Amino acid sequence: MTEAPKGVLSPVVTPFDGDLKPDTERWLAHCRWLLSQDCGLAIFGTNSEANSLSVAERRSLLEAAAQAGLDGARMMPGTGSCAFPEAVELTTAAVKAGCAGVLMLPPFYYKGVSDDGMFAFYSEVIERVGDERLRIYLYHIPLVAQVPISLDLIARLLKAYPGTIAGIKDSSGDWNNTRAMIERFDGFDVFCGSEQFLLDTMRAGGAGCISATANINPHAIHDLYANWQAADADARQEAITAFRMAIAKLPMIPALKSVIGICTDDPEWGRVRPPLVRLDAAQIAELGATLERFGFDMPGRREAA
Amino acid sequence: MTEAPKGVLSPVVTPFDGDLKPDTERWLAHCRWLLSQDCGLAIFGTNSEANSLSVAERRSLLEAAAQAGLDGARMMPGTGSCAFPEAVELTTAAVKAGCAGVLMLPPFYYKGVSDDGMFAFYSEVIERVGDERLRIYLYHIPLVAQVPISLDLIARLLKAYPGTIAGIKDSSGDWNNTRAMIERFDGFDVFCGSEQFLLDTMRAGGAGCISATANINPHAIHDLYANWQAADADARQEAITAFRMAIAKLPMIPALKSVIGICTDDPEWGRVRPPLVRLDAAQIAELGATLERFGFDMPGRREAA
Repeated sequence: MTEAPKGVLSPVVTPFDGDLKPDTERWLAHCRWLLSQDCGLAIFGTNSEANSLSVAERRSLLEAAAQAGLDGARMMPGTGSCAFPEAVELTTAAVKAGCAGVLMLPPFYYKGVSDDGMFAFYSEVIERVGDERLRIYLYHIPLVAQVPISLDLIARLLKAYPGTIAGIKDSSGDWNNTRAMIERFDGFDVFCGSEQFLLDTMRAGGAGCISATANINPHAIHDLYANWQAADADARQEAITAFRMAIAKLPMIPALKSVIGICTDDPEWGRVRPPLVRLDAAQIAELGATLERFGFDMPGRREAA
Repeated sequence: MTEAPKGVLSPVVTPFDGDLKPDTERWLAHCRWLLSQDCGLAIFGTNSEANSLSVAERRSLLEAAAQAGLDGARMMPGTGSCAFPEAVELTTAAVKAGCAGVLMLPPFYYKGVSDDGMFAFYSEVIERVGDERLRIYLYHIPLVAQVPISLDLIARLLKAYPGTIAGIKDSSGDWNNTRAMIERFDGFDVFCGSEQFLLDTMRAGGAGCISATANINPHAIHDLYANWQAADADARQEAITAFRMAIAKLPMIPALKSVIGICTDDPEWGRVRPPLVRLDAAQIAELGATLERFGFDMPGRREAA
């Protein structure tokens, strides 16, 4: 694979058409706009509703991205699955597409599994993909997956696959955990899962952030990433955190999609797949008022739509 | 579909070959033996490691069952998926194969989802399968899926799809919940998820049980089902519960597979897919001692192997 991804990445939200199929054109437009904002593409993440997509749908979108000429060096697709043959299939496709890395959930159906079992899962995937270009970023999101990735597991994987295990996205929301990952492991790129921890992450020696709200606010988040040593870094951090917290008062994924819908006058963007539910009229009005209060827009996004 | 399934069903364990691929011949032999013991086939359940199988692997096994002439009227495959297109694909295949019903997990990645979103998920599947023969048994297993199926959701689904929503498997382990389901809904077949509740379930008016240990002890469990009004029913219940509890001291899925391996002199049966881990030598010795203490065997199972 190519140079290691750093900085700000967005778990790209997935638009759906009236039949709830992935809307490839709207998706590509959003990907292109994010790249124009210095934001990498962590497609097929939690905020992408990736686990609500079939394996075939994920492969089809990945192929569309390659055909559209999106830069693989800026892409980190989610390729996890509860079933290792599917994780192998998706990961192989990502490597062949030249992606910089993959972001891999643990198998998340069984709970309380052992580190031995988790190690065996990642090991099966790595051995079966069998490609030196593979770079795996582990995905620790215990509140959703309910299957954590322990520090001991990371140590064991790094020892067995030092060139392949490249880093982690820590969506625990627990700064002490993120800091421990940064401090304990060398040559291991730690991304925080929310921009609220971006300044702390950079000061501690982390790699950046992969955050839901980078779908709509990538420029401001990247500005902090690029200027984390500037005198006004704390003020920048406060500003992007305040905006995130305001958006997070509503259900995050439908809210992100509705913000894009509002900023591009395109309500089609509001659709989600079940079990998620799109925002209702009152929630959209609340969201509109929030955007107005922050004087928020998505510069150039309408033109990209 | 055919007559409603009642009685005892087994979430059929899935054997794997040396490359961790499903071992179709060993699987069919186990299915045939279960049918010979008056035990229905709830293939692709939690104990089947169904979520560790790809959609293609599940379809291939279902096809193998049909080609082998297994009676669809005795089959209730698990067809749930976090992605509704995959649930539609698997459910359609099950209906076309003449299965008596399907056992459907809720989408289990996102947590804390609303009943509106859950209703929308099942609704998409039912409408898109679009087949009057479809009979759905909901699958409530909150300790694993971490996404419960509420009584209110059941009521709403029954009202919208009275001919299609046929029943539920309650693996909550909470008898009060199972009883509430039986008492509240008419024409709704409630299966307890463990034989330890079988007698209570039958006395309350339930349909039977779908239980892990029916993989190895189907005859004794069916005996209680068939004789639940007999004078010695409570003693039968105590006996099968004691055996289950002894097995459950070890991790259930690897233990079930090792019991089959022990009873058929076939250690190949012991394999599991990660993130599960097969029993080690000490655990197998412990299991062997347990079987000996109970004087346990699987009558005719060796001949079926």
